[in-house]
Amino acid sequence: MLQLSLNSESPLPLVDQIVGGIRSHIDDRMLRTGMRLPPIRSFADQHAVSRFTVVEAYDRLVALGYVTSRRGSGFYVSSRGQTPNTEIRSGDMVGQLERAFDNAGVMYQSLEDTSDRLKVGVGWLPPSWMDEEGVRRNLRALARRADLHATSYGTALGYRPLREQLRVKLADFGIAAKPDQILLTHGATQALDIIARTLIQPGDCVLVDDPGYWNLFANLRLYGANLVGVPRTANGPDPEALEALLKEHRPKAFFTHSVLHNPTSGNLSPATAFRVLQLAEKHDFLIVEDDAYGDFHPGPATRLAQLDQLNRVVYVGSFAKTLSADVRVGFLACNPDLRARFSDVKIVSCISTSEFAERLVYLMLTEGHYRKLIERVQGRLAEAADKTLHMLERNGLVPHGEPKGGMFVWAEVPGIGDATRLASDASEQGIMMAPGSIFRPQPQPSPCIRFNVAYALDPRLERYLGEALPRIVGAF
Amino acid sequence: MLQLSLNSESPLPLVDQIVGGIRSHIDDRMLRTGMRLPPIRSFADQHAVSRFTVVEAYDRLVALGYVTSRRGSGFYVSSRGQTPNTEIRSGDMVGQLERAFDNAGVMYQSLEDTSDRLKVGVGWLPPSWMDEEGVRRNLRALARRADLHATSYGTALGYRPLREQLRVKLADFGIAAKPDQILLTHGATQALDIIARTLIQPGDCVLVDDPGYWNLFANLRLYGANLVGVPRTANGPDPEALEALLKEHRPKAFFTHSVLHNPTSGNLSPATAFRVLQLAEKHDFLIVEDDAYGDFHPGPATRLAQLDQLNRVVYVGSFAKTLSADVRVGFLACNPDLRARFSDVKIVSCISTSEFAERLVYLMLTEGHYRKLIERVQGRLAEAADKTLHMLERNGLVPHGEPKGGMFVWAEVPGIGDATRLASDASEQGIMMAPGSIFRPQPQPSPCIRFNVAYALDPRLERYLGEALPRIVGAF
Repeated sequence: MLQLSLNSESPLPLVDQIVGGIRSHIDDRMLRTGMRLPPIRSFADQHAVSRFTVVEAYDRLVALGYVTSRRGSGFYVSSRGQTPNTEIRSGDMVGQLERAFDNAGVMYQSLEDTSDRLKVGVGWLPPSWMDEEGVRRNLRALARRADLHATSYGTALGYRPLREQLRVKLADFGIAAKPDQILLTHGATQALDIIARTLIQPGDCVLVDDPGYWNLFANLRLYGANLVGVPRTANGPDPEALEALLKEHRPKAFFTHSVLHNPTSGNLSPATAFRVLQLAEKHDFLIVEDDAYGDFHPGPATRLAQLDQLNRVVYVGSFAKTLSADVRVGFLACNPDLRARFSDVKIVSCISTSEFAERLVYLMLTEGHYRKLIERVQGRLAEAADKTLHMLERNGLVPHGEPKGGMFVWAEVPGIGDATRLASDASEQGIMMAPGSIFRPQPQPSPCIRFNVAYALDPRLERYLGEALPRIVGAF
Repeated sequence: MLQLSLNSESPLPLVDQIVGGIRSHIDDRMLRTGMRLPPIRSFADQHAVSRFTVVEAYDRLVALGYVTSRRGSGFYVSSRGQTPNTEIRSGDMVGQLERAFDNAGVMYQSLEDTSDRLKVGVGWLPPSWMDEEGVRRNLRALARRADLHATSYGTALGYRPLREQLRVKLADFGIAAKPDQILLTHGATQALDIIARTLIQPGDCVLVDDPGYWNLFANLRLYGANLVGVPRTANGPDPEALEALLKEHRPKAFFTHSVLHNPTSGNLSPATAFRVLQLAEKHDFLIVEDDAYGDFHPGPATRLAQLDQLNRVVYVGSFAKTLSADVRVGFLACNPDLRARFSDVKIVSCISTSEFAERLVYLMLTEGHYRKLIERVQGRLAEAADKTLHMLERNGLVPHGEPKGGMFVWAEVPGIGDATRLASDASEQGIMMAPGSIFRPQPQPSPCIRFNVAYALDPRLERYLGEALPRIVGAF
């Protein structure tokens, strides 16, 4: 997503402008060690300069030590010899890592950027939608508890009363789990990380949703997984496509969202769930069902874990989206044998999670406001989604499906080919968007954008779309 | 450490007793999937039964599906077909993992066991030594802050004011680090995990202290590291031995403790520090300096990062031992290039750490009590160490060195060969000990035991040693 402002009228030659622009991106760490520069051809096309100009600029950067050239593979930002022996991994993993860190860079900017940019691309609710006062109230309550023990390590599996409470929550979803089948984690992300780390060895094939959750892709890539995308339909993963892929690959696992899928907000249908589980049994792979957004679904929903009862499904949940992302409480639930493996990996990678944080979530779940809180947010989301759909349509975008709850609208920009162009442009105008290409497991374009409806009604977005779309993709 | 109570007088044949004992260990998850059973010969010797009896019992367990036999490698607890496709890794990694999970099992028990066992084997202080009231006070203060933001994700690097504060702390140690060279983590363990994950690929050689921190060994093994132990002298790693090892191995990194080394409480001397850094430069490996216990050192101490100034040293610190293990705040400091890689890995594996927890630590560091708190604990530790040394000597043990601060005494049991025997026996008497063998990077015996001085003065320990040592190793 490197986008330089080149000016062919400037007295500074274009080659110098490119060299200077890329150098300052590297110095500012917008481009980081190991990242690949855009291919010569696409850079030339995108900036409307000749390929010879780009070749000359890249060669100059190599000579300056900012970039190294890898035969047949392209140009990469080098570490400029600053650091001894820090080459992370070599050979065919470089491409994987480059993509992983590209994605990490997007998240890095979302987290670190404290300016007043409009972040319609983020995957969480604005603080003003969260129950900040409830957190404060329960913090104070916790500080008064005589049995606080806030200085010792927590237990290996996590605070038991919260696991008991999660048993009840899962039972509401029709999933039977004993408390010892539940492992508390540092957010759902650590749960996914522990699962990946336990199961995946370099070169293993892992199925993921296409489109799907990109931070997960980055994580799986760090373990050397070979990602294969399963196309997503309005009813969940496409069973026909899945079956065809299984003729070619022998996946270790399938990581998927069932309820309020990220990025489309689609839901799994019972018939599709059954087909996916049949295929998992026939081809003997594990399913990891990430339910980070599931609590926002109004009314009952279909989950794979409900059908399978944690036999070959590992269920992952979180309170990051509903209660607090900052207290970092997530969990996984699975069969006892896997749970024993996962808890071992948790111990050696972080010893224990914070019992204090787990007690805070426990208090918030048991004080009786959780359901009311969720219902209120569901109502606000439904209203915001409805308005966002209309606003996007008014501006010529084509939303996919009509989300039944959740915080995302997935909408296509007609005539654009790859919406990354729009996102790059928007970024320069102070609007952070999530273009569809980052949700694809392989480097492929997408004409779609994921809009967070809790941010999308800010008038800056509509103003921007009205101005930019005709400019970028022409009149509709 | 499998220890069954066999009775040759019982009407139940010995084979049946062994089969039943191991089965119940497996059912209770004391023995877990992938763990190796003791070799036939050592099991026979330890339990004073014939090898034929053990062979017959093991074969029966294989027939029952509890155990699988691997040619040339021994007998392993099987997953009994309960779980589909969950074989973690295959081939030559099994031995590595088995050891890793063995260690995880020890930690699991330390964390989960809430009975009144005397835990002289743990690596942390009793809750009564910690400033629980200070934590409560600052929790309340935090809940009152208008700018709490306890529901949103923290930043990628962690709460900036705490990083500013750590800059000051590191400057006190003579280590210059800008706040952006510091990455906050979920305890020191996550810092070590991020470093390992970024640097290590399967088969890489990694140097560690021998003896050294065993949970780190387990973690490095999970990434497929080939661990090579550097013998520890009273002045730190043995430079001669290190140099000899470097002729044979090309390590990626050396993970070491400089101050109040775990388990010996020894300290690095300036001359040894210089030699180690010279060798690191000559042989181009990175040094990871874990300083989890360093704050307990009274007066100045030598750290590798002080000499090297974070060029090829990555410094890891924590507040788990001094303020709270439960709030899970640790950090790493290193050069900017590595920091960028580590923060990427942090993002993809956990998104962010808890800013709330980081603010709590910030408040505790800045309210001005930290130094006083540490000085008080240092005084208590010095007194407890002195008394523990005398108690152990009185009972015939031989402490190595005279620890200058810290919570550990490392003492040899004369005539025992491997102190694991004593630890197994103690465990049955309600005393949890840390035998030297678990601190060794390779499966080797050790006649030493690590005693936590904050627990060692409980009269149950001396009573036990007085009774058990003559019984187990004979009269001194």
